[in-house]
Amino acid sequence: MISFEEAETEETVTCLHMTFYHPCQDDKMMFRCLNFHKREQVRADEMAKFGRDSNICRYNLMDTRVSRIQFSLQFYRKLNSSELCFEIKNMSKKTKLIVDQTELGYLNKIDLPWKCIICFGDYQVLAEIQEGESMDYFETQLHLAEVPILQERRLPSLQPVPENGISSALFSSQGKKPIEIDENES
Amino acid sequence: MISFEEAETEETVTCLHMTFYHPCQDDKMMFRCLNFHKREQVRADEMAKFGRDSNICRYNLMDTRVSRIQFSLQFYRKLNSSELCFEIKNMSKKTKLIVDQTELGYLNKIDLPWKCIICFGDYQVLAEIQEGESMDYFETQLHLAEVPILQERRLPSLQPVPENGISSALFSSQGKKPIEIDENES
Repeated sequence: MISFEEAETEETVTCLHMTFYHPCQDDKMMFRCLNFHKREQVRADEMAKFGRDSNICRYNLMDTRVSRIQFSLQFYRKLNSSELCFEIKNMSKKTKLIVDQTELGYLNKIDLPWKCIICFGDYQVLAEIQEGESMDYFETQLHLAEVPILQERRLPSLQPVPENGISSALFSSQGKKPIEIDENES
Repeated sequence: MISFEEAETEETVTCLHMTFYHPCQDDKMMFRCLNFHKREQVRADEMAKFGRDSNICRYNLMDTRVSRIQFSLQFYRKLNSSELCFEIKNMSKKTKLIVDQTELGYLNKIDLPWKCIICFGDYQVLAEIQEGESMDYFETQLHLAEVPILQERRLPSLQPVPENGISSALFSSQGKKPIEIDENES
């Protein structure tokens, strides 16, 4: 048995935090198959698929308006770099996938920004990547938003609204600071 | 039943031709699980995986030097374009994947050029994409090269050698012209 002193340094693991919101989530039916707060390991060679068909998708949304496969996430390493990233691909013929300002049609894909808002149908998902080193697997951690992630543009805001309308309390309530990408950091 | 006149215009299907070569292929053991010449349909949402593990890979190379998953191919549609493309990703931790002049490490990926040579270990694969319109699926057609795809650089060539050392007879023997990408075509 390898002693604590001799053991290999444990690698940090990339974790993708996804905070879901749906206007009708109070009955929580569409989210009843998602494991909130529990970190899940996904092998690096696996596509993380989100959709209605539980035979194909690891993450199931129980909603007839959701496509069999709604979108998929691919873990990859940038060429000539050690940077590990995700790519998101719209797998739905019926529904556009909006990543921040970019609208993806069926089979379109883009790199997932470190922090972004993903929308499809009435669903809103805040995605935040927590960097890691392991190339064997990554982790996902799903959260449920208590308030809409996108602010209603038509409502007059009487108070200063945080960026994207997301309260930082959302994450700190799970003992996690919001991830800040500081370009001055090495 | 829909009559011939009323039926929807049939879509053309993207076909990826892959011509394999291995210096020890005469015993054909490594290629014995590949279906040469037979076109295979692959769903657009499926990753076409090549490797040793038949539980994961659709295309099996029976060779202990080949990784469980050696590489995968993803079908996708370019953003703001109707162009359908493939992306190739190295899934092997042990072996580099070389696509023309680009060396891919584990989890690196790039767009597959319309005509290119893919190398890993002693394997050489000529890949050629025949354009199509269908977004539901694509096809693959595997061929076996009779001569090495890459010419040996150290050998003096006494005769003019065709580009990439591939004889066009390779393809015409299957009743198929080599695919020419003519940029003047609409």
